[in-house]
Amino acid sequence: MSSQNIPHQTISIDAATEQTFVNTIRMLSIDAVEQAKSGHPGLPMGMAQAAFTLWSRFLRFNPQNPSWFDRDRFVLSAGHGSMLLYSLLHLTGFADMTMEQLKSFRQWGSKTAGHPEFRHAPGIETTTGPLGQGFANGVGMAMAERWLASHFNRPDFNIIDHYTYAIVSDGDMMEGISSEAASLAGHLKLGKLIYLYDNNHVTIDGYTSLAYTEDWAKRFEAYDWHVQSIDGMDGDAVQAAIAAAQNDPRPSLIGCKTIIGYGSPTYEGTPHIHSDAVGEEELARVRKKLGFPADTRFYVPDEVKAVRQQFIDAGQAYQSAYDALLAAYAQQHPEAAAELQRAVAGELPTGWQDALPTFEAGKEMATRNAGSSVINAVAPVIPNLIGGSADLAASNKNTIKDGGDFQAGSYGGRNFHFGVREHAMGGIVNGMAYHGGVIPFGATFFVFTDYMRPSMRLAALSGLHVIYIFTHDSVGVGEDGPTHQPVEQLASLRAMPNMTVFRPGDANETTEAWRTALTHTSGPTLMALSRQNVPTFDRAGEGLGAAAEAAKGGYVLYQSEKAAQVVLIASGSELGIAYEAAKALVAEGLGVRVVSLPCWKLFEQQSAEYRAQVLLTGVPRLAVEAASPFGWERWVGNDPAQGDVIGVDRFGASAPYKRIYQELGLTAENVAARAKALING
Amino acid sequence: MSSQNIPHQTISIDAATEQTFVNTIRMLSIDAVEQAKSGHPGLPMGMAQAAFTLWSRFLRFNPQNPSWFDRDRFVLSAGHGSMLLYSLLHLTGFADMTMEQLKSFRQWGSKTAGHPEFRHAPGIETTTGPLGQGFANGVGMAMAERWLASHFNRPDFNIIDHYTYAIVSDGDMMEGISSEAASLAGHLKLGKLIYLYDNNHVTIDGYTSLAYTEDWAKRFEAYDWHVQSIDGMDGDAVQAAIAAAQNDPRPSLIGCKTIIGYGSPTYEGTPHIHSDAVGEEELARVRKKLGFPADTRFYVPDEVKAVRQQFIDAGQAYQSAYDALLAAYAQQHPEAAAELQRAVAGELPTGWQDALPTFEAGKEMATRNAGSSVINAVAPVIPNLIGGSADLAASNKNTIKDGGDFQAGSYGGRNFHFGVREHAMGGIVNGMAYHGGVIPFGATFFVFTDYMRPSMRLAALSGLHVIYIFTHDSVGVGEDGPTHQPVEQLASLRAMPNMTVFRPGDANETTEAWRTALTHTSGPTLMALSRQNVPTFDRAGEGLGAAAEAAKGGYVLYQSEKAAQVVLIASGSELGIAYEAAKALVAEGLGVRVVSLPCWKLFEQQSAEYRAQVLLTGVPRLAVEAASPFGWERWVGNDPAQGDVIGVDRFGASAPYKRIYQELGLTAENVAARAKALING
Repeated sequence: MSSQNIPHQTISIDAATEQTFVNTIRMLSIDAVEQAKSGHPGLPMGMAQAAFTLWSRFLRFNPQNPSWFDRDRFVLSAGHGSMLLYSLLHLTGFADMTMEQLKSFRQWGSKTAGHPEFRHAPGIETTTGPLGQGFANGVGMAMAERWLASHFNRPDFNIIDHYTYAIVSDGDMMEGISSEAASLAGHLKLGKLIYLYDNNHVTIDGYTSLAYTEDWAKRFEAYDWHVQSIDGMDGDAVQAAIAAAQNDPRPSLIGCKTIIGYGSPTYEGTPHIHSDAVGEEELARVRKKLGFPADTRFYVPDEVKAVRQQFIDAGQAYQSAYDALLAAYAQQHPEAAAELQRAVAGELPTGWQDALPTFEAGKEMATRNAGSSVINAVAPVIPNLIGGSADLAASNKNTIKDGGDFQAGSYGGRNFHFGVREHAMGGIVNGMAYHGGVIPFGATFFVFTDYMRPSMRLAALSGLHVIYIFTHDSVGVGEDGPTHQPVEQLASLRAMPNMTVFRPGDANETTEAWRTALTHTSGPTLMALSRQNVPTFDRAGEGLGAAAEAAKGGYVLYQSEKAAQVVLIASGSELGIAYEAAKALVAEGLGVRVVSLPCWKLFEQQSAEYRAQVLLTGVPRLAVEAASPFGWERWVGNDPAQGDVIGVDRFGASAPYKRIYQELGLTAENVAARAKALING
Repeated sequence: MSSQNIPHQTISIDAATEQTFVNTIRMLSIDAVEQAKSGHPGLPMGMAQAAFTLWSRFLRFNPQNPSWFDRDRFVLSAGHGSMLLYSLLHLTGFADMTMEQLKSFRQWGSKTAGHPEFRHAPGIETTTGPLGQGFANGVGMAMAERWLASHFNRPDFNIIDHYTYAIVSDGDMMEGISSEAASLAGHLKLGKLIYLYDNNHVTIDGYTSLAYTEDWAKRFEAYDWHVQSIDGMDGDAVQAAIAAAQNDPRPSLIGCKTIIGYGSPTYEGTPHIHSDAVGEEELARVRKKLGFPADTRFYVPDEVKAVRQQFIDAGQAYQSAYDALLAAYAQQHPEAAAELQRAVAGELPTGWQDALPTFEAGKEMATRNAGSSVINAVAPVIPNLIGGSADLAASNKNTIKDGGDFQAGSYGGRNFHFGVREHAMGGIVNGMAYHGGVIPFGATFFVFTDYMRPSMRLAALSGLHVIYIFTHDSVGVGEDGPTHQPVEQLASLRAMPNMTVFRPGDANETTEAWRTALTHTSGPTLMALSRQNVPTFDRAGEGLGAAAEAAKGGYVLYQSEKAAQVVLIASGSELGIAYEAAKALVAEGLGVRVVSLPCWKLFEQQSAEYRAQVLLTGVPRLAVEAASPFGWERWVGNDPAQGDVIGVDRFGASAPYKRIYQELGLTAENVAARAKALING
């Protein structure tokens, strides 16, 4: 028994009504674009039939409980066609998607943003618009589904068992992230992934003949996808194709030949209808062609309105049957059911924090190695913590020991191999987070965040609980050289709204970074970890601030007995250097404070009083960080007599890292010298 | 006649010597890695034969004049295999690549960085290492070659006519940028592009079976490439395959089955040899297996040394023949020859600046439209200014009117259609700049810089003369919403070393942005241009600073008669808002200065005195920019009584832009109010 065994709830609708329904999607879409004087009518009009067939004959969802966990997922990767989704949500009974919302398309405060935004309204499964992202999100959803199924299903209880569908466009197909994700999806044999490709031959700039003439079907066959090519405006053909896709063990791509902007006599099939309002005159012609009354706007014929209840009833039927299944499952497998409930709610098991390790003082240890210890300490108590690396697991140290590999034959593995595909990894972990039930992480070198930045931005924008493990976090990378040494990445990601950037200063701060990452659920957390060894501070022995203080983003690591004449501020691998410099200065009779600042975002969330207490006032400050100094004036000011930064205002170099640190002045000696210069004015 | 008609200069070498030569490449590579205790011996050892065959039987180059313009280009996209390239350069006679350099592999100040770095030594055509970049660079080189050929060749004078070769790895093949670039290369029928794919089935994390099992050959056939699969360690097979590739009108991919780390008895064919030194014991075994004397290091047998002169002679023969061809060309086509010489030297034609337009005051104009006027004003006088957009030409306004389209049938077109492939565009414009002879530009929405950032970073690192036209530069994008509205991109790119970020404040500053972009040849310049209209200041009429001052990065746009009580600092579309606020404040009897700060980098290059003159000292400052405030403390300090920022510290929203500006406080009223608050303390 599984939710796929629940009989499909047929929407009873005659051919004429279906045609009117489909045309209503078209009319609502073009009306909304006209009203907003902006938007993209082309895709919704071309794909209305295919989308309707999918939603009415296959998609299992419950408009009255859109978050029903085992629902089929629907991703509109071609997010510019947002009115297709909004129209469908309105017509199939999602209460939030009112007619008022459709009329407020692209207006301040509406749920109907220019591109679909996750959390704006139930039924919007993903934030899309930047092309290719939804494609990868869907792959992530299908991977989460397979992992959860493997983990939670029991004989006779396929409690997790759903499809993931998406509509993708020419633009999606051209983006590299889609190629990466498609190759991985084929490798993993994600047979429950079914994509409808709006093969309309038109992009914003014109016809695809301008730049996109590859044999896409052959390309996807090469990825080991099941590929079909059909008339996407023929409902029966769409129905047959989706049915065939369901029966194939490979992921499926259904090329739907459509006429972009179908229904617009003047512009259909041309780039003009891709992304512009067509104007009143043409709109009148559209109404006529689609059989809608003249002079109407946002008109929904009564027979179409009547179908809404069928969708609601169908949703209720799915839900009831599933609820019964779940109840029986809970009776027979109470522990698994409890764990599932917790996972779906996004909660951590009671007492999980007891598993967090404390590291022995004195030992030198790279924070990437500390990270490895943390992940392996918490993995047993947080079974739905899963993820992997983009082919750098041995360097990123993110492997969950005894966690097994997630592969086609073994979907229960907790270690994912993304290949050299950082961008797809970014989109996939987002998809896993959108799906829910798992806490996903992705890992690579910190410099390669550049490859996955568009996905990281969407994780931040959508408020996804995603964890990033980025090692090799500075010029400390050493011999690999400037191409592999991040410099500006810290600043560039600190500047991103809702991205929590954590660069722990020793092993025990790494534990705190993980504590933040696991508990901060309203957005992504990234950890920037060192390749090279750093000291593990003897906090108790040397009277230093507790590592737990790192949860405040910044705290006093060290305060000399003598009142501070300079405040050294550092993060990550430079914290030890700053502390070493402080001890040298103190030995010279000076007063010094060392502030650890592993997370600006958390520090900014503290009270102004706390921040002033930590940073002191009227005492010169010297920041030390093996990264671009860009942004550090926030903490040290822009008066050179009062604040200074030892940073890296250039690209790095290829050499053993100690030499690089020496050459770039990232040494205790230089810190001490610059500190004295500040003290002496 | 063309350089391809110059008879190939055969390297006379018997089979035994060839084998020794190939093994010398292997030994030098593994010796250097051992010496550095870091590096990647696997690829050089596996691909030594294929690379040797390419270099000795096909590649036309001149070690004594490595910048000979019509040389074949060789890109080591798999940059981690850098010792393959360094060994070849050393053994074929590139004077800079001394034995001392090989011994200094990965050391501070050496030319032999961990990954190949452009400009470090002649013969290194590109900076590679971040995977996929070299793949796209090669496509860009081949495009530049075709454009230059179309532009400069004359009957009987194929003065530009060379191949572009690359060695690519499994990792390159997995990266999305390669897929994008490959699809475009197939579309454009770049028949002179020939890539050797080191199909060794091993990546850092293990065997490709972990994550990469697609049918790569079929995929590339789908892109309309000519695909072969051969034994890459068989020189004859490599020779036959390259010859076949040259004879096919499509771009070619030659899958070379190799044994990674061939020659290491213990580790060959396994992931262990991908990226680690093997240790002394194994090294002894390698020497034995490859027939090298025991206890030697960096040993080059005499018979291999003797071949160097043959490569030098061959190079000289190519060069002499080509020089004669060029001389005859110059005689028959003196104007074209002069233009070619100028283009190759990277110089602009005398008097080109006279073409730069001045915009009439008073008219409202989006800076993207001003940009369009500038590009079309200079295009006729700078014929080698070429480029295009990633499917947003109509929005980016970057089209060169009457410039024609660069397409398979028409390589002389100046407008490039990259498709929805921002990352490939980034890598391709880099490749065009590496190639030389053209000034390439790429365009997309500013927010999508995230998609192409790895390539932009390499443009900055390699000091490439590349121009970026990024429109839709803020939340002023409006209805498309937060997915399409840049917020943190300005800060994140200002933080990047050697990236010149220019956000002009009106049409005439846009002219200055272009002047900078065209004359700043030691690194990329990006222009962030507005979608929405902004005023064109009446500088003469209202006594404002001249737009030419923008070349200094920052200047006084407006100073009230009364001494300033507040300094408003703005860039781009907010400059007009700041000026409007200033006028309102002056009407209330206050003293105000408005500083335009379109380019931080240029402003930082001015003297401290100039900066102080512009920004004043002891007067509170208020920055206004529709972007993340991150980094602005550099100019306004961190004392809230002395400095403030009106920025966007969140993601944007979907709505008409005026409403967004209103809601986010980006209005003259709010600027005036915040300015007064500062003045009043």
